[in-house]
Amino acid sequence: MSPAKAASCDLLITNAAEVLTLSRGALPRCGEDQQDLGLVRNASVAIKGGKVLQVAPAAKLKGLKAKRRIDAEGMVVLPGFVDAHTHLVFAGHRAREVELKAAGRSYQDIARDGGGILSTVEATRAASKAELVGLARERLGRMLALGTTTAEVKSGYALTPDGEVKLLEVIRELQRKQPVMLVPTFLGAHAVPEGGDADAYINQLIEEALPRVAKGDLARFCDVFLEQGYFDATQARRLLKAAQRHGLRVKVHADEFSRCGGAELAVELGAASADHLLKASDRGLRELARTKTPAVLLPSTPWANLLKGYADARQMVGYGVPVALGSDLSPGAWNESMLLACQLAVYNMGLLPSEAIVAATINAACAIGMEQEVGSLEPGKRADLLIADVETWHELCYRLGSNPIALVLKDGKVVAEN
Amino acid sequence: MSPAKAASCDLLITNAAEVLTLSRGALPRCGEDQQDLGLVRNASVAIKGGKVLQVAPAAKLKGLKAKRRIDAEGMVVLPGFVDAHTHLVFAGHRAREVELKAAGRSYQDIARDGGGILSTVEATRAASKAELVGLARERLGRMLALGTTTAEVKSGYALTPDGEVKLLEVIRELQRKQPVMLVPTFLGAHAVPEGGDADAYINQLIEEALPRVAKGDLARFCDVFLEQGYFDATQARRLLKAAQRHGLRVKVHADEFSRCGGAELAVELGAASADHLLKASDRGLRELARTKTPAVLLPSTPWANLLKGYADARQMVGYGVPVALGSDLSPGAWNESMLLACQLAVYNMGLLPSEAIVAATINAACAIGMEQEVGSLEPGKRADLLIADVETWHELCYRLGSNPIALVLKDGKVVAEN
Repeated sequence: MSPAKAASCDLLITNAAEVLTLSRGALPRCGEDQQDLGLVRNASVAIKGGKVLQVAPAAKLKGLKAKRRIDAEGMVVLPGFVDAHTHLVFAGHRAREVELKAAGRSYQDIARDGGGILSTVEATRAASKAELVGLARERLGRMLALGTTTAEVKSGYALTPDGEVKLLEVIRELQRKQPVMLVPTFLGAHAVPEGGDADAYINQLIEEALPRVAKGDLARFCDVFLEQGYFDATQARRLLKAAQRHGLRVKVHADEFSRCGGAELAVELGAASADHLLKASDRGLRELARTKTPAVLLPSTPWANLLKGYADARQMVGYGVPVALGSDLSPGAWNESMLLACQLAVYNMGLLPSEAIVAATINAACAIGMEQEVGSLEPGKRADLLIADVETWHELCYRLGSNPIALVLKDGKVVAEN
Repeated sequence: MSPAKAASCDLLITNAAEVLTLSRGALPRCGEDQQDLGLVRNASVAIKGGKVLQVAPAAKLKGLKAKRRIDAEGMVVLPGFVDAHTHLVFAGHRAREVELKAAGRSYQDIARDGGGILSTVEATRAASKAELVGLARERLGRMLALGTTTAEVKSGYALTPDGEVKLLEVIRELQRKQPVMLVPTFLGAHAVPEGGDADAYINQLIEEALPRVAKGDLARFCDVFLEQGYFDATQARRLLKAAQRHGLRVKVHADEFSRCGGAELAVELGAASADHLLKASDRGLRELARTKTPAVLLPSTPWANLLKGYADARQMVGYGVPVALGSDLSPGAWNESMLLACQLAVYNMGLLPSEAIVAATINAACAIGMEQEVGSLEPGKRADLLIADVETWHELCYRLGSNPIALVLKDGKVVAEN
């Protein structure tokens, strides 16, 4: 829409020192494009009907009528962060495990003493829907203040068909109660239930859970933890193909602790993303690049678990894999900040700051199928945006420890003010 | 003082799930004591005249008369963080260097293109006192909200006698304008001025700067950057001994990039602390342990500079060196959060979470000569404390990315509320 036609808008964000549009259409960025922030200097952003109407040099939009104005002089405007991978819904916490992990105790030791994922499953099963909504809502409030306006959310801490459906219903309820846009993923196959059998559990998920998930439109994706001691490629394939028959798109927790052919399976099934990828094979990475399947990298997880290795982000970018980021918010890696995920991606994993910002916005949107709606500031997209109290985007991964986001807007409305 | 005698107080912080007293008298903690948080469960904190009157189980203090009460039920109370090492006062920023560093450009390359410390010196020299006060005050406001109630602050970005005195005057002015307690350090010998000679500059600092610093009571410590390309041990010793003759205590930027005998010099001169220590010799560390000289470790700095190595904190604790932490807030590592410093100390450097909290409170206080006043919650000490919205202290290094501090008190008064 030209400025002439757009004679008025609801909100004009004026005189930003920099606007990061991330604009280029709804395609994941890869290779050198992973650095392209779509920077416009001295710019304003016009918003109408909750959507971006136009981003242009401030002088061009000066005459535009606006019901309301926000002065962003000297500040930076960017799209709201998209968190491409969270396990938001759970009860309890495992804070005490940090001291044990730091003292060198193994995950197996900790699990034997009643810690680890099965302790979270126990606490989550015991919690009511209202309790789970309450706990997750507090986390979402903090995530929003830190700039996350869209988040993928997985089930996965009930490990029964009924329980997993309940967790997806909690996500639906959360969507009604707060502004962060949630994209639900069915991860019934997060682990084998205690005393259970992996094959039998996959059968149960296919026969008892998937039909209810599909019928209730409770999830957009089906994910699986493909890993030694969890589910193998045959089981994962069987579940994900069944999910596809029910109309769900698929994702894979791939090659996190061992090389299991996760990247290859993601490509084989046309997955929306392959996540983790610390141990992915060279062939797998080249396949992801060829098919432009986003890799969702989660640097908070090895960090919070004191692991030395990280996904080889530089090689992925070099191959042309579109790299996205997620917080992996979970009881095992409780990170609520996408900016911390970006900083870890830069300082521990080797992405450039510009690549990290692309990974946390448009590429994350692509990884969760939301690229038509969010992840960049382009006409027609949701006006989900952040006003950061910094002179230049370079400060986002530079000023550490404090939250630089002054204002968070969702659908053109201010939803958090720091 | 017994509860019977202390019949009333100004403020009673009631029913905290945990109070970390860090109490044990004013000595640095080392070895196994570095883990000792002085934990009291279900406790209240009585405050009178801006000082801690008593910490005791909530039931014991229930009957105490109080002018005001703060309900800390289910939360954690701990001493305000003490940041043992900052370069708070400077103009400009070097945010653009992150992209360059991440792309593999060397510090030398960046300096040649007009970046690095000398660009900060140029910007700082050009700034007025009022500008420098304004910039530093914004940073202090964020640090306070993140829980820092005491901070050491170094001069060092003017590199002339006049300029360095001006920076110390800025610190004094800052103390009048905001609540974080500042401990000023004269670091005229932060680098050799461009085109200058190290020996001649040391002479100048001794003859022209130190007398003014001492006469004006502008600094409590004198520090020096002992490092290849900066100042050697002979120059450092000469400056620090002159400072001692003027009544200042001394500190050393020791063994950061190369093994320069920094730890040994710190011990030789009875320094208040030896800082950085990435390359310290085994003999140097054993000497620090023998003399109980605190090591101030700064994990933000290698992190923000994409360096792989960290100080060997585990070995230091093993030898019995008291380990303290600082943010090293500076244009080269802009970290405003002591909690992030703690998390980096745990996840990148190998401290236990309990050891990190000790390092960020009582041991940091010892490293800056403030152990009689702050760093623990004991009768008679300043009531500088944090109320964290967490169930247990274990969450402090576990919940990442958001600020868990709900309330910050300085001298018994609420100075920040998140």
